[in-house]
Amino acid sequence: MKLSAIAKAIGLSFEGEDLEISGIHTLNEAIAGQITFLDNPKYIPDLEKTNASAVLCDRASVAQVPVGCIALVDEEPYLKLALASKLFAPKVIETDGPDAIIGEGSFVSEKAFVGTGAVIGKNVKILPGTFIGCYAKIGDNTIVHANVTVYRDCEIGKECIIHSGTVIGSDGFGFAHTKLGEHVKIYQNGNVVVEDDVEIGANCAIDRAVFGTTYIRKGCKIDNLVQFGHNVDIGEYSILVAQCGIAGSSKLGRNVVMGGQSATAGHLEIAPFTTFAARSGITNDVKQSGKTYGGFPLMEQRQWLKLQAKLARLLKSK
Amino acid sequence: MKLSAIAKAIGLSFEGEDLEISGIHTLNEAIAGQITFLDNPKYIPDLEKTNASAVLCDRASVAQVPVGCIALVDEEPYLKLALASKLFAPKVIETDGPDAIIGEGSFVSEKAFVGTGAVIGKNVKILPGTFIGCYAKIGDNTIVHANVTVYRDCEIGKECIIHSGTVIGSDGFGFAHTKLGEHVKIYQNGNVVVEDDVEIGANCAIDRAVFGTTYIRKGCKIDNLVQFGHNVDIGEYSILVAQCGIAGSSKLGRNVVMGGQSATAGHLEIAPFTTFAARSGITNDVKQSGKTYGGFPLMEQRQWLKLQAKLARLLKSK
Amino acid sequence: MKLSAIAKAIGLSFEGEDLEISGIHTLNEAIAGQITFLDNPKYIPDLEKTNASAVLCDRASVAQVPVGCIALVDEEPYLKLALASKLFAPKVIETDGPDAIIGEGSFVSEKAFVGTGAVIGKNVKILPGTFIGCYAKIGDNTIVHANVTVYRDCEIGKECIIHSGTVIGSDGFGFAHTKLGEHVKIYQNGNVVVEDDVEIGANCAIDRAVFGTTYIRKGCKIDNLVQFGHNVDIGEYSILVAQCGIAGSSKLGRNVVMGGQSATAGHLEIAPFTTFAARSGITNDVKQSGKTYGGFPLMEQRQWLKLQAKLARLLKSK
Repeated sequence: MKLSAIAKAIGLSFEGEDLEISGIHTLNEAIAGQITFLDNPKYIPDLEKTNASAVLCDRASVAQVPVGCIALVDEEPYLKLALASKLFAPKVIETDGPDAIIGEGSFVSEKAFVGTGAVIGKNVKILPGTFIGCYAKIGDNTIVHANVTVYRDCEIGKECIIHSGTVIGSDGFGFAHTKLGEHVKIYQNGNVVVEDDVEIGANCAIDRAVFGTTYIRKGCKIDNLVQFGHNVDIGEYSILVAQCGIAGSSKLGRNVVMGGQSATAGHLEIAPFTTFAARSGITNDVKQSGKTYGGFPLMEQRQWLKLQAKLARLLKSK
Repeated sequence: MKLSAIAKAIGLSFEGEDLEISGIHTLNEAIAGQITFLDNPKYIPDLEKTNASAVLCDRASVAQVPVGCIALVDEEPYLKLALASKLFAPKVIETDGPDAIIGEGSFVSEKAFVGTGAVIGKNVKILPGTFIGCYAKIGDNTIVHANVTVYRDCEIGKECIIHSGTVIGSDGFGFAHTKLGEHVKIYQNGNVVVEDDVEIGANCAIDRAVFGTTYIRKGCKIDNLVQFGHNVDIGEYSILVAQCGIAGSSKLGRNVVMGGQSATAGHLEIAPFTTFAARSGITNDVKQSGKTYGGFPLMEQRQWLKLQAKLARLLKSK
Repeated sequence: MKLSAIAKAIGLSFEGEDLEISGIHTLNEAIAGQITFLDNPKYIPDLEKTNASAVLCDRASVAQVPVGCIALVDEEPYLKLALASKLFAPKVIETDGPDAIIGEGSFVSEKAFVGTGAVIGKNVKILPGTFIGCYAKIGDNTIVHANVTVYRDCEIGKECIIHSGTVIGSDGFGFAHTKLGEHVKIYQNGNVVVEDDVEIGANCAIDRAVFGTTYIRKGCKIDNLVQFGHNVDIGEYSILVAQCGIAGSSKLGRNVVMGGQSATAGHLEIAPFTTFAARSGITNDVKQSGKTYGGFPLMEQRQWLKLQAKLARLLKSK
């Protein structure tokens, strides 16, 4: 899509040499030919290094836009990003395109749906009521139980088991807000990659990335009713117990254990081999590996137990 | 249905002039031709003003039944209500009736189901595995992703996006209890209305009203795995983050924000522009607009932070 | 399957008289012809009494293996159990076998799926998008709403209502762990039995037993988004409010009430007529009937209220 057409579509003026824009991405991840955005002055260092060919930013930041990157200026650049994101959103379903490829030995129920361009590996089982979106990929020997939904462009590895009712690739929860309190959707144009040997329980929800990819890494085991925000990255062999939730963009190291009903805030980094007791509430990075935490606010689990003992004493006091 | 037939079906005696009863509703909402019920003496002022044509009540309340309203008397009126509610329950699925209407430009997958009497607007997308119940309505330009369930009589507005696995219109959780500890279903004969420009994430559950309507108002944005009890009313432009829950009959003002895993008790009123931090536990009305709360029990968020600081000090003390 | 073949498949040596093994079960439940396992020395008394014909155990426990039971010895017997469990896993879907039986007066949507060997009672309603697995049973007059999943071999009683999106019989969350931090699936070869007169809300998840049966007993009423681990046993007429969770192998007595977002740890026993307030966190057995609890850690609800009053005072103090 031409940059001039984008500008027009989102209500911005544009002058100068036009160019073809192939997509939207963050300051750090955008490549030449893409448009990016600056919504917070703390990311100006990233702006100065961006490889994007165009950027949505406010007037105050224009001076930091690198040479060769065209600024589209607005005082609400995040709102403009939301509008622009819609222009690059793929269709929710495509009826034209290449036939799906089904590998040898695979069973695909007649009551399942496999979209155009999808690639199903060998010895896969896709049970009735399951939806495999356009251009999705399912690796060899994977079992996708009944009534699972895999949105378009998402990928599931080999030797996985996905239980019923689970949704992989729903839109992340991202909105820009107008001054009137309305919410404008930021289209979620990324995908989800579930690596090999992952098992996911029933009725989980795994959001696709806004840009890029949401990862569930190799060997993870996920219980039922677990929530994953967009762009999370769950480290290899992590174990997530029922009803826990990982907010957007948080990154867990390998072999992290999340107890039942525990949850993280967004944009956190959790060191490998960290264990969280049930109902932990995690609002800060965990930097040191191998410890066990609990409580909300979070503390080391033995501290939490000590605190509860003190509270029991407080309760008995006059 | 004749009042005499209702009385007979639920095991009550009935004398006097018979009349046709068209439905059941609460004391305040019932209109002429409907039957209502009194299950708690605190609602006697409402009984005195009811427009219902008949009422289930106990002997002690008969004197307060207004003229023109026929009392059906029993010492367990709520149990009798449960039995009566079944008489007015619509069929879960109807095979006769008018063909569904599908608007111009709409895509309805052959692997979706659209019930008799349903009305689908223009440019709607209904993906495979989705169930649109009898007499449900879907507004123009709305996208209903795969494996969504919309129960009969429910309505979704224009420009909405409903993600996979979400259930709209399941029965509310309402039972009368016998002296032996058994639970008798109160049939949930209302519906759900989702207004325009609403987005609902994956695997949410929105219960239909017992009587009347459960509302998700214009412009609301709902994350994944969110729970809505029957008869809730979620104000315009409210934002509900993943895994939060709104118990039955609670009413949120506009632009309320509920953090992840937060929850309200039932029958509450929350002032507009209120923000609840993640995991807030809300058990009382919030009357003043624009504040931020947290904790369980609920307090202002800055108080909660202060309390946590005090607990940290307590923990360090001898 | 021959014991020699099992030994070979899981990488153990086997000498002596071979025998046919019909299945795997726990020390207490295994019958003659089955294989069992000892993964914790505290169960040695059970080992001494087991009726199993073979056992996976470590060298230190061999002396306690009863006469007539053959020991397969390994220093990681639980890991070997995981490998052996796969050998007895039934197929996720079978295409051969007896036709399903559909009782008189039942409605089964053409867009539902009913597996081979399933038995559907009289006057049952199975709505579109619902999956009834092989050899599953649905009792008379039960309503299974749209997009429900009932895995193979599971049973639902008479007069039940199962709401959309609910999953019955997904695999329990059981893994053995290697020294390298990988997780090896313990195949979940049991089932789920939902007894008569049960109502289950939308988007719940009920895991099948690893061995034996997960029970939801007669007259239980379950709200939306509730989680049940494998081998739980929910007593008659219990009420479980939305978003609560029962971890594996916990057993609730009759008429237990679990408030919204409450949860139990695994392997607990809860006395009948116990009530848990919303968000209770239950980590120990409850032995005395009829009390009301709350908080996490759990305490009597009136104690929890008292503690909150003390914390409010602490907050106000200097």
